Amino acid sequence: MAFQVNSDLALADLRELATFGACGQGVERRMWTPADVQSRRWLQRKMAEAGLEAHIDAVGNVVGRTNHKRRVVIGSHTDTVPKGGWLDGALGVITGLAIARALQTQKPDLPIGVEVVSFADEEGYFAPFLGSKVAAGFITVKAALTTKNSLGETLAACIQGSELATQNAWRIDPSHHVAFLELHIEQGPVLDAHQIALGVVTHIVGIRQDRVTFVGSANHAGTTPMNMRADAAAALFDFATEWRRQCAAMGSPTAVWNVGHAILEPNAHNVVASRALGTCQYRDIEEETLQRCGLLLRESAEAAARRNQCSWSIERQLEIQPTPMSPGLVDICERACRTLGHSFRRMPSGAGHDAMIIGRVIPAGMLFVPSKGGISHSTDEDTPAESLARGMQALASAFEQVSRLQ
Amino acid sequence: MAFQVNSDLALADLRELATFGACGQGVERRMWTPADVQSRRWLQRKMAEAGLEAHIDAVGNVVGRTNHKRRVVIGSHTDTVPKGGWLDGALGVITGLAIARALQTQKPDLPIGVEVVSFADEEGYFAPFLGSKVAAGFITVKAALTTKNSLGETLAACIQGSELATQNAWRIDPSHHVAFLELHIEQGPVLDAHQIALGVVTHIVGIRQDRVTFVGSANHAGTTPMNMRADAAAALFDFATEWRRQCAAMGSPTAVWNVGHAILEPNAHNVVASRALGTCQYRDIEEETLQRCGLLLRESAEAAARRNQCSWSIERQLEIQPTPMSPGLVDICERACRTLGHSFRRMPSGAGHDAMIIGRVIPAGMLFVPSKGGISHSTDEDTPAESLARGMQALASAFEQVSRLQ
Repeated sequence: MAFQVNSDLALADLRELATFGACGQGVERRMWTPADVQSRRWLQRKMAEAGLEAHIDAVGNVVGRTNHKRRVVIGSHTDTVPKGGWLDGALGVITGLAIARALQTQKPDLPIGVEVVSFADEEGYFAPFLGSKVAAGFITVKAALTTKNSLGETLAACIQGSELATQNAWRIDPSHHVAFLELHIEQGPVLDAHQIALGVVTHIVGIRQDRVTFVGSANHAGTTPMNMRADAAAALFDFATEWRRQCAAMGSPTAVWNVGHAILEPNAHNVVASRALGTCQYRDIEEETLQRCGLLLRESAEAAARRNQCSWSIERQLEIQPTPMSPGLVDICERACRTLGHSFRRMPSGAGHDAMIIGRVIPAGMLFVPSKGGISHSTDEDTPAESLARGMQALASAFEQVSRLQ
Repeated sequence: MAFQVNSDLALADLRELATFGACGQGVERRMWTPADVQSRRWLQRKMAEAGLEAHIDAVGNVVGRTNHKRRVVIGSHTDTVPKGGWLDGALGVITGLAIARALQTQKPDLPIGVEVVSFADEEGYFAPFLGSKVAAGFITVKAALTTKNSLGETLAACIQGSELATQNAWRIDPSHHVAFLELHIEQGPVLDAHQIALGVVTHIVGIRQDRVTFVGSANHAGTTPMNMRADAAAALFDFATEWRRQCAAMGSPTAVWNVGHAILEPNAHNVVASRALGTCQYRDIEEETLQRCGLLLRESAEAAARRNQCSWSIERQLEIQPTPMSPGLVDICERACRTLGHSFRRMPSGAGHDAMIIGRVIPAGMLFVPSKGGISHSTDEDTPAESLARGMQALASAFEQVSRLQ
């Protein structure tokens, strides 16, 4: 290949970025906290040093571009969850920087440039995907600035005193932005367990979150005969078991479901529970499957409530549609893996990414590198350097193909 | 009947007793808190006024006796749970006082007297059934005095500064104490729902409490394929549903079971639970049934753990054997109901009582009056005055029969 990224330099960048908010082996950089602000200022300087025209926009997106008229947007996010990993998001941003740097230094004869971005607040300290949603035009700058973090501070109050950010928000413009590419760690165990070098993302799953609440009567667990009980805990256990069984019986190879959160009241050994709630999250690449899971959920809840003399209610807490990646970019990413001789698997992303938002306004493509042990959102998150370098080079190859197609 | 209690006076006593630690319609008198100490001093005075020789023993039991050589012990407890009811325990003590008073005033030609007792700490602010266990000889005074309340204070530190209590503990002596009788509210819904005047207690149920813990792996609920999960919450739901189903399939008319307490970790919507525990309490009048429930519990836990790739463990937290009431006293209590023309039902007690402890050293018998709506351990606890009077008179009749038998 004529076009190669300097992955050693990019790895050094990644390690330097990880010093901002360092926390054991990981980092903690919640959106616009001091460590996050420092890392954004650092990133803007790195972009400028690479010859990019760089700024931080009104909501905190850090953007740096080559001077080509049309560009591929490459990036991800540098904010993290509390006690997060050093690669989640950062890898995609630094890869964008590495590709832009290669473009500036090698000056290949390509009609298309690069626009590197670190989206603000992907992890949702104020609101999830805040930066990409503003860039895609799904929320206004004004609305974004009124969101509050868990301390009750608005983004406006945090960001506007800093004199770092510009007045205007950066927007995706399909007449100038031809595609979006994102490299990310898998955040799951599949590639690592099967020793596959790269994942070619075909879809980002849709997500539903429904909270089911059963209401019965608190009663003495010794003196109340079984047939006089309205046991909300029994209804919840009964529901969760049956719903999970029915989801499994669908036989979908891609759907996943979880009841990872449950609360009983009064939650006492010797009292029949008066109230029990379970939070059900389910994901798939097909909207039909999600609707089917939702229907099974309602049927199972209704039946479990009836069997246990309880009433029940449901609250939809989250609803995100599945986002297919651009089929053309899926093929291009696959070709990049083949050309470089790396093993790969086409796979859905079970986690949400900025590509899910940006992919609704311009074609988007994603590559995954393995996550050691499938661990992410943890300071234990890691991926070997050679895996990271493979991912960077493959994304560069995908960029080059997109560029030559135009 | 020649022998009658003055139930109006007894009801007035009950209402006066309810002024100590009054809390809405209920009372709060945890063992040896100021309200409890005041109520014990008041009770000792009431006993003395009724002509009884009364004292407060080394662990707080309040005891008052007639001067007969052989006596029927009649009583219960006057301590309460936080925000408890005005009748739970208090009814049985005041009924003992009413019967002793009737004996002193009517002086019937009976060879047997009465020893009225309010047992210390039935509700277990220091240790459950503390007073009756000392009286029955199951724990030493020394051990009782070293128990601590939830503030970390020993019973010794609380009680010994008061100069109210004697040096010695009162002990049940089968050569002088011929039987124990206790009147109590049902604390369940059966009598009230079926409009039955009195319950003749045949057994006090045995109780087992087992905590089952499942351990799996915390994983991202979106990116971890279903077949790579070790879901501790799923194991718990699965176990609880199956164990409850198998308990029901036993077909016991008396056994009850409850999983009223459960904790998931990390208890997050988007994380597969790494740990889940459920506390299982089950009760019956037959030891065999309890052992069968325990076996089913282990089998269900083992199978659920296996199906969900988790490990599991069990901790026995409580083990109380079933206590049958004296068959002779059950017949006598039943005859008292018939003689007075009251409807009654023979029934087990699903809750523990002092009679469960004292019944292991001398013959014990119990009568229940209805609990309005089955409610107890609540300030809403109540029973109509005429029901209370029926119960008092029936217990007096039972006492008279015991006395005439000797």
